Amino acid sequence: MKRVASGLLPLIAIDRKSQKPLHKQIYDAYRLAVVNGHLRPGQRVPSTRVLSSELGVSRFPVLDAYSQLLAEGYFESRVGAGTVVCSTLPERFTISTPNNTRSTPSKSELRTLARRASTITRAENVPWARGFGAFGLGKVASDQFPHRIWAKLVARHCRKMDAESSHYGDPMGLLALRETIANYLRTARSVRCEAEQIMILSGSQQALVLTAQVLLDPGSSVWVEEPGYRLARDAFALNQCNVVSIPVDNEGLNVAAGILKCRKARAAIVTPSHQFPLGVTMSAKRRLQLLDWAQNTGAWIIEDDYDSEYRYESSPIASLQGLDVNARVIYVGTFSKVLFPSLRLGYVVIPSDLVDSFLTIRRALDLGPPNLNQEVLTDFIGEGHFERHIRRMRILYGERRTILVESIDREFGPMVEVLGSDAGMHLTMKLPNEIPDRQIAERAALQNLWIWPLSAAFFGRTAFPGFVLGFGSTAAADIPDSVRKLRKLFTKR
Amino acid sequence: MKRVASGLLPLIAIDRKSQKPLHKQIYDAYRLAVVNGHLRPGQRVPSTRVLSSELGVSRFPVLDAYSQLLAEGYFESRVGAGTVVCSTLPERFTISTPNNTRSTPSKSELRTLARRASTITRAENVPWARGFGAFGLGKVASDQFPHRIWAKLVARHCRKMDAESSHYGDPMGLLALRETIANYLRTARSVRCEAEQIMILSGSQQALVLTAQVLLDPGSSVWVEEPGYRLARDAFALNQCNVVSIPVDNEGLNVAAGILKCRKARAAIVTPSHQFPLGVTMSAKRRLQLLDWAQNTGAWIIEDDYDSEYRYESSPIASLQGLDVNARVIYVGTFSKVLFPSLRLGYVVIPSDLVDSFLTIRRALDLGPPNLNQEVLTDFIGEGHFERHIRRMRILYGERRTILVESIDREFGPMVEVLGSDAGMHLTMKLPNEIPDRQIAERAALQNLWIWPLSAAFFGRTAFPGFVLGFGSTAAADIPDSVRKLRKLFTKR
Repeated sequence: MKRVASGLLPLIAIDRKSQKPLHKQIYDAYRLAVVNGHLRPGQRVPSTRVLSSELGVSRFPVLDAYSQLLAEGYFESRVGAGTVVCSTLPERFTISTPNNTRSTPSKSELRTLARRASTITRAENVPWARGFGAFGLGKVASDQFPHRIWAKLVARHCRKMDAESSHYGDPMGLLALRETIANYLRTARSVRCEAEQIMILSGSQQALVLTAQVLLDPGSSVWVEEPGYRLARDAFALNQCNVVSIPVDNEGLNVAAGILKCRKARAAIVTPSHQFPLGVTMSAKRRLQLLDWAQNTGAWIIEDDYDSEYRYESSPIASLQGLDVNARVIYVGTFSKVLFPSLRLGYVVIPSDLVDSFLTIRRALDLGPPNLNQEVLTDFIGEGHFERHIRRMRILYGERRTILVESIDREFGPMVEVLGSDAGMHLTMKLPNEIPDRQIAERAALQNLWIWPLSAAFFGRTAFPGFVLGFGSTAAADIPDSVRKLRKLFTKR
Repeated sequence: MKRVASGLLPLIAIDRKSQKPLHKQIYDAYRLAVVNGHLRPGQRVPSTRVLSSELGVSRFPVLDAYSQLLAEGYFESRVGAGTVVCSTLPERFTISTPNNTRSTPSKSELRTLARRASTITRAENVPWARGFGAFGLGKVASDQFPHRIWAKLVARHCRKMDAESSHYGDPMGLLALRETIANYLRTARSVRCEAEQIMILSGSQQALVLTAQVLLDPGSSVWVEEPGYRLARDAFALNQCNVVSIPVDNEGLNVAAGILKCRKARAAIVTPSHQFPLGVTMSAKRRLQLLDWAQNTGAWIIEDDYDSEYRYESSPIASLQGLDVNARVIYVGTFSKVLFPSLRLGYVVIPSDLVDSFLTIRRALDLGPPNLNQEVLTDFIGEGHFERHIRRMRILYGERRTILVESIDREFGPMVEVLGSDAGMHLTMKLPNEIPDRQIAERAALQNLWIWPLSAAFFGRTAFPGFVLGFGSTAAADIPDSVRKLRKLFTKR
């Protein structure tokens, strides 16, 4: 049931059955006609009276459409000549060519992007990151999370929403949460800090990106651990830093090797409590060497303490930051592992003299964190739920870990070496050199086993193959069978 | 009630009344002694039996502390010599100096930051941004927000939390939300887009930062509007771009002036629907000129469409993106104005061929957005609450605007010109040249009037003074009196 204006303007077609209002149909049709060059600058358009009668509609939608076209400068009114297409529109846009309605650009066009767009790891859809079965990395026991308590706190703060909590908050984050975190870090992690030094971010990734932006110019060199966490490397590559891989051994980052390779680096990013992925704890000797190097060369140390709440053999390892007497360590923490990742809350502990610079850059980065989750988390910690949750999870994950280590030992025997099982929610199986870890990981994914090949964590040559196995979301009862399934993938090869 | 070990180790003091467990007290004391150089490498420490008897405590806390100190490498066991301080600790850290316990660095040290840390606007605590009274900028009528509906949706999604919704989500954002936004933008804003092109971010600020990172190398030139939005400028300064101010007149950004000043700029950031702060709508002619320049030079256009939902005199202005046939426009939107700022959700519409590059950089930037607010917003829009809210607010803000314009006219008469009152939640009063807008804004803040001086929006010379007045959070009944109070500040000068 389309009705088309006859004669003068065949392009104006209206459809009374369409959900689009009449005035919008008329406006759209004229605008398109001007842009496509179907109507030329200075060309006269019918009066509203004529058009409404042509189209058989009331004058109101036509008047609405015309006033909008006049307001936006597609039409202009000329004394004595009525309404015409605006005569000052650039010619190029008002001449119809076969080309100008395509919506994707031709290959030959100049579509230059930033250089960094090609240096950062592409978000590849690796087979071992797709599913939610056994051994998924970075996954928590979400069925054990006190959802009911959390929901109650959420409801409480939703009810209290007012002008202030709806508006932009402090770019540093909610003060009450920062105080709560400072207390926690001083007590549980031996971090030296006051609430004023703590900034709330969306997680450790944003904390690393911000730290790189504040401390490092493009072209500056940075030590990263080899093997290591690819996204930490990307946080610095994003800032066009020169990322230098430094080997990790049984004592953590090899500081002497770093000094030999690139003494003048401006920063080092380390995971001293539980190295990712190997799980080693950096020794006191290395910690002191690293602090020494930083102090001597004016470099910064970024301590990514992503999962040290869960430690099974001894008390949690004291932070590197707490050892530092020269305020050279930037300490990064996250709630992704200890609560759940989709919360997107983490923090950075900033040396006092750098707080202003961090604040300035952070405001430009994203203004600040969302409010509700911060309020909920403050109460969750303050009312003791956080501590109870950590205690419960430490027991639960400890069991899962023990069963996993036993199962690996039973199925694989001396063929593999288990690393980093003292802490956190993952461990690493070191494999004999000839084992193709990627291929097995790909096959494992088909059987709902989500193991990460260690070779994916080496940026240079793979020193030894292996698997990184998460046990956070894998029930103890499922572990022995899953390890047996994994073992079978080896014999099939 | 402190008890100190006599003779050998006076530094180990324990306090039974302390909340700190005994083993932690012993561990801390030894660690500090090693780090401060009170104990030297190779120096023997008492056996656990001796120390426990010295301190008058059971052997268990001492054993715990020692095993932790051994695990962390502060102590080592020597056959025949018992336990000693680790002999391979670097000397520098184990010699006591008066300096090494200070927690803030001395001024003379090398504490070099990135250059950008000094080029971005410092987060100054301007007087006119502190309060919640009349005319606050960027503030919404939060008392009119359907909090109850929102809270119901929050509760619904809290209850449904599971393994998948707890885990890291799609770095592009929740697909259901992206589909909902795509529908909305096609219908209400004439944006050409599919859900695949939409990425959810924490707001327009993060969208601008991401866009700069993907498209522009440090040193690239970018056009920004003069006067303009300071934080948009900072998003590009963060990436060390060369920010070039281009004047805005009654038709929006002066494209010809831009071409004269810096034809080779790689991008332009514009607010064509409702220029910030002047409120003008970019004319069709200028829009087409801008698209033409971009296509001819291979530049990108970033359209920041921050508040165009609210338009009072005509239908919302169609987006610039919808006019572009060469996929050169990156369209940025936010829910900060139309819902509330502390939600921290916005989006960017990406040309199809650039989606992969945006995704790669975004993942490195912060992994992705939090989940809960996305789920809630999807339902809020999908169930029609969003549209209803916009309709109600358009009427409410329209009333406030009319009363504000009338009040300004009554109090100030021809002395001021009101700009940009057709749309959005703020308008601008253009003042005669001799009026010191900053000084008046400072005095106004003392009277709970939160007006922004226009001079703060000029990056170069202030072309004319004025005030930017928000009316989103100012009740209609309070407006006439507030304008009268503002008028009185002029006569006092």
